[in-house]
Amino acid sequence: MQGGILFVYDNQTMLERQEPHSLPYPDLETYTVDMSHILALITDGPTKTYCHRRLNFLESKFSLHEMLNEMSEFKELKSNPHRDFYNVRKVDTHIHAAACMNQKHLLRFIKHTYQTEPDRTVAEKLGRKITLRQVFDSLHMDPYDLTVDSLDVHAGRQTFHRFDKFNSKYNPVGASELRDLYLKTENFLGGEYFARMVKEVARELEDSKYQYSEPRLSIYGRSPQEWHSLARWFIQHKVYSPNMRWIIQVPRIYDIFRSKKLLPNFGKMLENIFLPLFKATIDPQDNRELHLFLKYVTGFDSVDDESKHSDHMFSEKSPSPDLWTSEQNPPYSYYLYYMYANIMVLNNLRRERGLSTFLFRPHCGEAGSITHLVSAFLTADNISHGLLLKKSPVLQYLYYLAQIPIAMSPLSNNSLFLEYSKNPLREFLHKGLHVSLSTDDPMQFHYTKEALMEEYAIAAQVWKLSTCDLCEIARNSVLQSGLSHQEKQKFLGQNYYKEGPEGNDIRKTNVAQIRMAFRYETLCNELSFLSDAMKSEEITALTK
Amino acid sequence: MQGGILFVYDNQTMLERQEPHSLPYPDLETYTVDMSHILALITDGPTKTYCHRRLNFLESKFSLHEMLNEMSEFKELKSNPHRDFYNVRKVDTHIHAAACMNQKHLLRFIKHTYQTEPDRTVAEKLGRKITLRQVFDSLHMDPYDLTVDSLDVHAGRQTFHRFDKFNSKYNPVGASELRDLYLKTENFLGGEYFARMVKEVARELEDSKYQYSEPRLSIYGRSPQEWHSLARWFIQHKVYSPNMRWIIQVPRIYDIFRSKKLLPNFGKMLENIFLPLFKATIDPQDNRELHLFLKYVTGFDSVDDESKHSDHMFSEKSPSPDLWTSEQNPPYSYYLYYMYANIMVLNNLRRERGLSTFLFRPHCGEAGSITHLVSAFLTADNISHGLLLKKSPVLQYLYYLAQIPIAMSPLSNNSLFLEYSKNPLREFLHKGLHVSLSTDDPMQFHYTKEALMEEYAIAAQVWKLSTCDLCEIARNSVLQSGLSHQEKQKFLGQNYYKEGPEGNDIRKTNVAQIRMAFRYETLCNELSFLSDAMKSEEITALTK
Repeated sequence: MQGGILFVYDNQTMLERQEPHSLPYPDLETYTVDMSHILALITDGPTKTYCHRRLNFLESKFSLHEMLNEMSEFKELKSNPHRDFYNVRKVDTHIHAAACMNQKHLLRFIKHTYQTEPDRTVAEKLGRKITLRQVFDSLHMDPYDLTVDSLDVHAGRQTFHRFDKFNSKYNPVGASELRDLYLKTENFLGGEYFARMVKEVARELEDSKYQYSEPRLSIYGRSPQEWHSLARWFIQHKVYSPNMRWIIQVPRIYDIFRSKKLLPNFGKMLENIFLPLFKATIDPQDNRELHLFLKYVTGFDSVDDESKHSDHMFSEKSPSPDLWTSEQNPPYSYYLYYMYANIMVLNNLRRERGLSTFLFRPHCGEAGSITHLVSAFLTADNISHGLLLKKSPVLQYLYYLAQIPIAMSPLSNNSLFLEYSKNPLREFLHKGLHVSLSTDDPMQFHYTKEALMEEYAIAAQVWKLSTCDLCEIARNSVLQSGLSHQEKQKFLGQNYYKEGPEGNDIRKTNVAQIRMAFRYETLCNELSFLSDAMKSEEITALTK
Repeated sequence: MQGGILFVYDNQTMLERQEPHSLPYPDLETYTVDMSHILALITDGPTKTYCHRRLNFLESKFSLHEMLNEMSEFKELKSNPHRDFYNVRKVDTHIHAAACMNQKHLLRFIKHTYQTEPDRTVAEKLGRKITLRQVFDSLHMDPYDLTVDSLDVHAGRQTFHRFDKFNSKYNPVGASELRDLYLKTENFLGGEYFARMVKEVARELEDSKYQYSEPRLSIYGRSPQEWHSLARWFIQHKVYSPNMRWIIQVPRIYDIFRSKKLLPNFGKMLENIFLPLFKATIDPQDNRELHLFLKYVTGFDSVDDESKHSDHMFSEKSPSPDLWTSEQNPPYSYYLYYMYANIMVLNNLRRERGLSTFLFRPHCGEAGSITHLVSAFLTADNISHGLLLKKSPVLQYLYYLAQIPIAMSPLSNNSLFLEYSKNPLREFLHKGLHVSLSTDDPMQFHYTKEALMEEYAIAAQVWKLSTCDLCEIARNSVLQSGLSHQEKQKFLGQNYYKEGPEGNDIRKTNVAQIRMAFRYETLCNELSFLSDAMKSEEITALTK
């Protein structure tokens, strides 16, 4: 359980418990071999042509389906009692907790705290206690005059292709003091303000009744204490809401910690992230808060600017995490493999003990190299963004065949990487990829009080999506979310896990059975087409 | 005051009052001569080239301004205390009362009435009283099962270029019974349901504090009683709201009434529309309700499908309204002239008596012939839509020079006539045309509870408008609205009526002075450019 690289811990865990049976995880060799296999595939000319054609075919087929069946689909929906787009369940599948309130909400909250408790001690600097009034005095501002303009957290035209500028938008009025005070879980107030705001957002979701969200909270891997303080924040402030499921995001910023000498090597970062979870799993009594918190955590995310380039090429010869001592950041694929392997071992351990398991849902394909999408294809349960699938027909086809869920955020992309009209969401949806809509950062991107509805409304308006399209996206969002089996049965129908029309309860989802049948037949067709081709190739090979 | 054509009435009015001084109005000859002058102008080759170039120049000039001054503008806004996009006043300058609630609101209201008063008598047919329950029984539906899908009032892909289909969307569940019951001012309940819904919308506006709207109510001109029953509806149900100003829309459907033999000629329709207003103006005591109602009416609108073609070409030789007995509908220009002339006489009369006057704000340039925009240029205080200015550089330049306000509704256009991305709003705004954003029909087009904010949000996202752009649009919307002088002073600043930066109070409008200066200089430039050209032409003519 101490020292060494991560995949040793797990065996030690086992040894201590005198249980020699293994907790399987994919080994490095399998991963790197599969990686290079797919990398070869996505650049292979004939494969590219084939996939490109199949995708075109899928798109045309859907157009045809739409022309022929649009009215029948709508008729089905019209005769479906008591269920419409407004009361089908929707999950915001990708949202960061620190930006889950909109800019107006944050502004109102800041003003409210200043009005009600200006003399409260909210920070301590060099042993001196600082009141809220003093914080604002030192920034030379009067919260009464504060506006969303001076708050300046909204992404504008200046953030396009400038992820660095975007990140600084997390600082209200450009002041990191305010970020610490209002948007962090660890500060002098024990993250009270942040918790209160998140709970206000949760109340709004509960009032809306049909909306759920999966906010991301950060674990950095800087110290092993992070988990405990995060769990304490969650428990003490009672942040729990039935309409929220939590995901832990791990920023890929080892290089920053390393250069500040906060970490000796990458292995230590992994240890800080995962060891507390193993401990809490093995000994829940000694880690009550963390154990309780983990009940509401449904997965892990890996986050950062994907457009940052890494010089290192991950292979079997790469140094193992405990030997990764350089100040260079490991590449995306390296991060993903080690997170995935650890999560898998942890899941196996937790499953044995009848505890909940975690999904791996990294950010992927927002920008940068398309090889990220290869790593995620091998490891992720689902991904956020997936924009760059647009650029690789082979990967896009693979994601389609495997029906890997993709949480897309076209408004976020519009401010950062790709103009709205060029966003591939509509095209992906038409072809049958498993896409959902999510907000990413309402604080930076959205204007109205209902960020997720704004996201759906804009997509519906700009792309002229039908009600059936919208309800299909909403159904996808529940399916790909971390909601429990029971909840999914309640929201989508008893047999939601079955494929095709059988798995759809129109009374709950408002998705036409004609649509479900079309999707199912089309997918089966593609798969059988492939397996037939494989067979005939075998026959050709045999007769040669 | 009786019989004859409309422009006689006014003189008769005067005669009766033994006051021979005239209430001026533009005569038919002036109008038709001006019409043909501008019609010649907009097809003149060199003029087209000139205007096209000036417009291109205006657009490039704004781009340059944006590149150079965007950050300075934003800095100005950031240092502007207590005012941001959320708390600047915005007016929904074009919205139809019968569609001012969104589809979800209407649905909820219908369900609510059924739950609370199923046994109330709500209609009478052939002397038999019909309860709410019976209405729904006869339609074979249970309101509990009703959804926005079965309600089917939302515009979908089926309404594109099909104004006829769009109009039928005003019938909930396709049943005109429900339209009569819920969306009309005249019915067995005296329009109670409609009034209650409108008041709910008004309460939301009042709660939002910064949003105003100008809903349209219909006067058809079918009978002289319409005004009184509309005024009674308004007074009895206390529909007044400080956040609403009313506009009367007159549908251009003389042909329908004529073919049903409800009207002998077009003159009678005009008489039904205007005579009650003259009476109420001259004798408020005898027309108390109407007199009171008129205090909250700020203008007239002329509405219908503009793409309907008319065979008649309006000229001096056209039959006068009392002689227009054919079943053919008069052309757009004919409607506009006679409405305008009557409004002008009425306004002069009311001004004499110290009463409020009315603006003329017709729908124009949504579809159909661009000559509509010529008629409106000569008569309108401002117009709704103006899409087709896109197709005529000369008219577009004229609307720019005259700064004729245009209330645009890109989401409405997106469902009916022009895809969102092709909408010229952004281009018009950049060039400096006086545009505002409006919703038209939230029931048919919008998804969220805040239709006007949805409209602003989508424009901001798709076109990447800056805060200054948005606030400029909001300021335009207040300027072009029917709000009073005092209200405009309160919302925009003491000197709002002055041109240029002098007329702008950034503390109220949040529009940067840099922007105001740019707009003012640019417009002065264009005007002096023109007057210089005129002068040099005179000199050339003299020296010849």
